[in-house]
Amino acid sequence: MKLIVQKFGGTSVANAERIRNVARIITDTYRKGANVVAVVSAQGDTTDDLIAKAHEIDENPSKREMDMLLSTGEQISIALLAMAISKMGYPVISLTGRQAGFFTDSNHSRARIKRVDTERLEKELDQRKIVVVAGFQGMNRYDDITTLGRGGSDTSAVALAAELKADLCQIYTDVDGVYTADPRIVPSAQKLEEISFDEMLELASCGAQVLHNRSVEMAKKYNVNLEVLSSLEDKPGTKIKEVTRMEKLLIKGVAKDDDVVRISLIGLADHPGVAFKIFSLLAARKINVDIILQSVGRDGTKDISFTVPIDSYKAAVEVLTEERDQINNCTIDVDTDVTKISIVGSGMQSNPGVASRMFEALSEADINIEMISTSEIKISVLIRKKLGDKALNVVSEAFVK
Amino acid sequence: MKLIVQKFGGTSVANAERIRNVARIITDTYRKGANVVAVVSAQGDTTDDLIAKAHEIDENPSKREMDMLLSTGEQISIALLAMAISKMGYPVISLTGRQAGFFTDSNHSRARIKRVDTERLEKELDQRKIVVVAGFQGMNRYDDITTLGRGGSDTSAVALAAELKADLCQIYTDVDGVYTADPRIVPSAQKLEEISFDEMLELASCGAQVLHNRSVEMAKKYNVNLEVLSSLEDKPGTKIKEVTRMEKLLIKGVAKDDDVVRISLIGLADHPGVAFKIFSLLAARKINVDIILQSVGRDGTKDISFTVPIDSYKAAVEVLTEERDQINNCTIDVDTDVTKISIVGSGMQSNPGVASRMFEALSEADINIEMISTSEIKISVLIRKKLGDKALNVVSEAFVK
Repeated sequence: MKLIVQKFGGTSVANAERIRNVARIITDTYRKGANVVAVVSAQGDTTDDLIAKAHEIDENPSKREMDMLLSTGEQISIALLAMAISKMGYPVISLTGRQAGFFTDSNHSRARIKRVDTERLEKELDQRKIVVVAGFQGMNRYDDITTLGRGGSDTSAVALAAELKADLCQIYTDVDGVYTADPRIVPSAQKLEEISFDEMLELASCGAQVLHNRSVEMAKKYNVNLEVLSSLEDKPGTKIKEVTRMEKLLIKGVAKDDDVVRISLIGLADHPGVAFKIFSLLAARKINVDIILQSVGRDGTKDISFTVPIDSYKAAVEVLTEERDQINNCTIDVDTDVTKISIVGSGMQSNPGVASRMFEALSEADINIEMISTSEIKISVLIRKKLGDKALNVVSEAFVK
Repeated sequence: MKLIVQKFGGTSVANAERIRNVARIITDTYRKGANVVAVVSAQGDTTDDLIAKAHEIDENPSKREMDMLLSTGEQISIALLAMAISKMGYPVISLTGRQAGFFTDSNHSRARIKRVDTERLEKELDQRKIVVVAGFQGMNRYDDITTLGRGGSDTSAVALAAELKADLCQIYTDVDGVYTADPRIVPSAQKLEEISFDEMLELASCGAQVLHNRSVEMAKKYNVNLEVLSSLEDKPGTKIKEVTRMEKLLIKGVAKDDDVVRISLIGLADHPGVAFKIFSLLAARKINVDIILQSVGRDGTKDISFTVPIDSYKAAVEVLTEERDQINNCTIDVDTDVTKISIVGSGMQSNPGVASRMFEALSEADINIEMISTSEIKISVLIRKKLGDKALNVVSEAFVK
């Protein structure tokens, strides 16, 4: 018998009507003969409401107690969804993260899954029950409730699909698939039928917010077939798998990432070990560095520029300022008025014309490229922030016909 | 070291300000050198809100899923209260019913506690932590969440106090103790310093809603010292214990119970076994019968009248109608326009003047007595419903000076 894991986000279960809609999707799948495990998030604004309640008491509450509080959100969702499925006449049972066997480490508010003990869950499936599981949550070795942090429910679904060796893991969201570019900005963007894990990972890290990287990484590791589709429209979504069949669409996506700041260190000593010193200082503070560019400066010095996520640039400047004597007392220049445009596609490496076609499109639109970074399946450029949407459109049109 | 269990109801934790107030009561007790276990209910209207959400989906939802849903209410309360205590600088941890070791049977929505495994809880107390426990909930042998039904949080608190051999179990409510009569109806009512378990049980079953009988029964069984007091005013409440010291106040309370219906069976055959037949039929349907009165009728028949709770009189009439041929095809008369007035006090039996003083007070107020029932520590009379408040006042004044 086929086994399908279906994950529904907070907007998909926001009210009674939406819950009934989700129940219909699940029971349709069940009626066609598959076993179904549904993983759900907290309803719409529940999490925000609970956070507000906590902040009324303490602006900086204990993370263990926050997890105790927030985990009620998914528990409410699973009970209501199970009621809706039962009302439609199907056998169903809801399970909390703990009951579904999610064992995590003790990093409250951003716990990692250590293992999933699916004995109970499989027993329920053996009885041909639909099983509704609370996403985002688990239990640590001290028998305390933990939550998985950002992208948690997607990760719960993929972990269950991996453990149960499910035939498919469907991620239902409020968009109907993965697009070549954000369709709200680029009207000509096209929905992808398929995309590879690696391409999806690059797209997500370039700011395409459909799936959290954490869940895609796990799907890649355990080779879980993913599909992203809409809970509101009944049509095929985008399949994410190890290898995609089609080669004809070279570029899988164009993405814009505004969450980026450029830092330039000007007037560094031009001798070995300088770059190592800088990036080991940043790594020690767990600051992720993306694009790096080094150029020769004047008078035997050199300049190094790099980009960091917007929420860590202050920490980066702080550590570099503190340790300035180690890096030749260089000038530290910060530019927050930048955005990153990336194209992603696995056929890129063997097609040398791709980069030049991207640069040509930008040049024709009079958009200046400030930094460039390339990988096997990605080309990113840094440009002025206000030109971001325009760049997204011209690059998209250059590749997606 | 002293150990005190403190229970706080839904109104006591209804909002952030009330939660901080409860945190102050707990930390005051802790600071004076006692170990404290706090048992809390769901916030104010949370349970009603959750029930409304469920009913939007199914008017008659699965009880197992209802328990899954409703148990989130107390879980929210314990997390918020633990945050408030922590914010005040005290070591604290919250535990769900399951984590606190409440094992119950599988009667979802009205489970009975089978045992309390306090190993985890005692480990936390050993570290001098304040432990905040979710009342009303537990776990059955299948690892499913259960709830204890009416009076559940009080029962949780008493069960913990019994298992931990606590020195005192304080039940904080929105009234400041047990009164000789409902002070909202009888202005002259007095607060009792002490009352025995048996007296409290009779008072509660007569409609005094301070404590649910279930928790008092358990306190009596395990000899747990109880105290009922207000979370809003800092003054002594009422102590409930095995034997009370004082004898001077003979009558401990006067109570009114509107939740009662009189059923009369007129024209029954006057031979042995008739009463047995009637009450075994009712017992089989789990219908509680309170006052019973039998009188001789005309023509060799007899009449039997009895009272039942208002929510089971329809079931009573139904079973008696179905089985009318077994009870001489008697006439079934139902009277819902009645109320029960009771006086409770353990010194009653050895003071023959008590009943007559009660009847005299009612007679002087021109209130007709329709049925009478007496026990060792209680006298109840049935009167017209509209005379209830007047009767409560005159009887109260006759005894409480």
